Amino acid sequence: MKYVIGVDLGGTSIKFGLVNSEGKILKKLTLPTNAEKGPKGVIKEIKKGVQTVLKGNRKKIEGIGIGAPGTISLKKGTVEYPPNFPGWGRVHLGKILQNQLEKKVFVENDANTAAIGELIFGHGDKFDSFIMITLGTGVGGGVILKRKLFRGDGGGAGEIGHISIDYNGKQCKCGSKGCVEAYLGNNYIIEDVKEELKQEKDSVIWKIIDNDFSNLTPKTIHEAALLNDGYAINKIKELGFYLGCGLVSAINVLDIPTVIIGGGVAGFGKLLFDSVEDTILERVLTPLKGRINVKHSKLKNEAGVKGAAALVFYKY
Amino acid sequence: MKYVIGVDLGGTSIKFGLVNSEGKILKKLTLPTNAEKGPKGVIKEIKKGVQTVLKGNRKKIEGIGIGAPGTISLKKGTVEYPPNFPGWGRVHLGKILQNQLEKKVFVENDANTAAIGELIFGHGDKFDSFIMITLGTGVGGGVILKRKLFRGDGGGAGEIGHISIDYNGKQCKCGSKGCVEAYLGNNYIIEDVKEELKQEKDSVIWKIIDNDFSNLTPKTIHEAALLNDGYAINKIKELGFYLGCGLVSAINVLDIPTVIIGGGVAGFGKLLFDSVEDTILERVLTPLKGRINVKHSKLKNEAGVKGAAALVFYKY
Repeated sequence: MKYVIGVDLGGTSIKFGLVNSEGKILKKLTLPTNAEKGPKGVIKEIKKGVQTVLKGNRKKIEGIGIGAPGTISLKKGTVEYPPNFPGWGRVHLGKILQNQLEKKVFVENDANTAAIGELIFGHGDKFDSFIMITLGTGVGGGVILKRKLFRGDGGGAGEIGHISIDYNGKQCKCGSKGCVEAYLGNNYIIEDVKEELKQEKDSVIWKIIDNDFSNLTPKTIHEAALLNDGYAINKIKELGFYLGCGLVSAINVLDIPTVIIGGGVAGFGKLLFDSVEDTILERVLTPLKGRINVKHSKLKNEAGVKGAAALVFYKY
Repeated sequence: MKYVIGVDLGGTSIKFGLVNSEGKILKKLTLPTNAEKGPKGVIKEIKKGVQTVLKGNRKKIEGIGIGAPGTISLKKGTVEYPPNFPGWGRVHLGKILQNQLEKKVFVENDANTAAIGELIFGHGDKFDSFIMITLGTGVGGGVILKRKLFRGDGGGAGEIGHISIDYNGKQCKCGSKGCVEAYLGNNYIIEDVKEELKQEKDSVIWKIIDNDFSNLTPKTIHEAALLNDGYAINKIKELGFYLGCGLVSAINVLDIPTVIIGGGVAGFGKLLFDSVEDTILERVLTPLKGRINVKHSKLKNEAGVKGAAALVFYKY
């Protein structure tokens, strides 16, 4: 059995895990990110956390994997301008930590980490190629082709969240219109539901949020759907339709018919997944129809730490 | 210098060329396809044409490349259900011809042939990765990544024509809505222009087609644009916008920022290309903006035969 440390670097907290080669988390730790202290402060927290987990285990640890936001350049594990991290320009995070911790360090961005995590510890046991989607604040995408991360020509491939499903559609923060992310990103969902609820006086959501929009989250919508709320059910189906439409374009271009969906909004469950799959089956090119699979991520809420750990086991 | 034979198998005619390793066509021949005679009749014509070109050159010919419509399975050069070829189910075209002609035979579909042609004899001299688009009856796509044809997981990747730009858009023959092909395919363009011309009584197109819709072709629209016809100019720009919107999704997913456009409608020229490029630059993800290239195919109206010939020079 081999052991590694997975580090999930988020905007508010850093999660650490001692993970074995079967993907089991043996030890856990969470520290505040202290993003306001700039790169030095954050790196200090990462070191502290890793050293805590290393204690007594140093010899058997093969390496450290880090899932980080922003654009990552692989060679030196360079993190470029991560959103919500003030003061970070280009930081050679991997190289710095490798020197100080004297262990191999691998850094990947969130979406690639999720895809590699799924490959090593999740549905990768059955699928050699798949499109990974993470539904969070943004809509992340990572593509695994024949057990390798597909990086395209420039290293930034897989941006399924920025496939446009409507050239005249919702404005996306990226500057384009109608991006999948402009429909499925957490904040976009909340904004839309707020607007629509004004016409949905009977929705049970009003009761759940106690008439206070600040209580509204994707979870609320799911709760309402489980209580058979017509509006909430249709909303989740609609979101599945939008995601499905974007995936049809991705599948037609990539010829990769398996889709794995993770992240918070994936918690909408069967309602969402059925709608995604129905949409793909209705619209994808005929020769692909027989091979379509839509799956929920196997790593669920441990995807961050397990995915980061998987980086050490992935064959680069 | 090496020599090969390129065969462009079309619905009404088969074009043959003796091509050298510099991409120069030294001898040409065109025969009728005789598609109505079924696979046997078509294969007979191909053999006749190849043998005519082989005469006196047999010893120096390295192999034969064939660009064919429909889905191709590489191993035996199998052509599956090509459109406009009655009586063809699955025909092992490559294997049959290889046995009878005693030369290596390579078969690819039209779009992949165009992409490989461009790689070997066209812009491949400067670009190792690009998205190839062919604008004809359909909108074909072939992706070259690091000098290899990108086939995805199942072999059918690159269907840029079936990226949807509007989930509620024009009905496409493939069953989906808003596909790039439903805007840019020759027949779709003609149908749209017919409809729109009813409101464009002043367009010079009416004069060019002598008030007879059966004279209307994409070329007519280009002629009108060259005569400064406002409607025709806007139409070509609009088509470039639609194609650009589809390409933005493809580029974001593939991280391949070079686009090469060929086929008849590419003859719209600068008006079309500028509109495609402007749209991509406006909408693609920021890190890609600095690397965007939109080019006209170098092979132009010899793309069919030269592309087919290139298959023999391509390193499979």
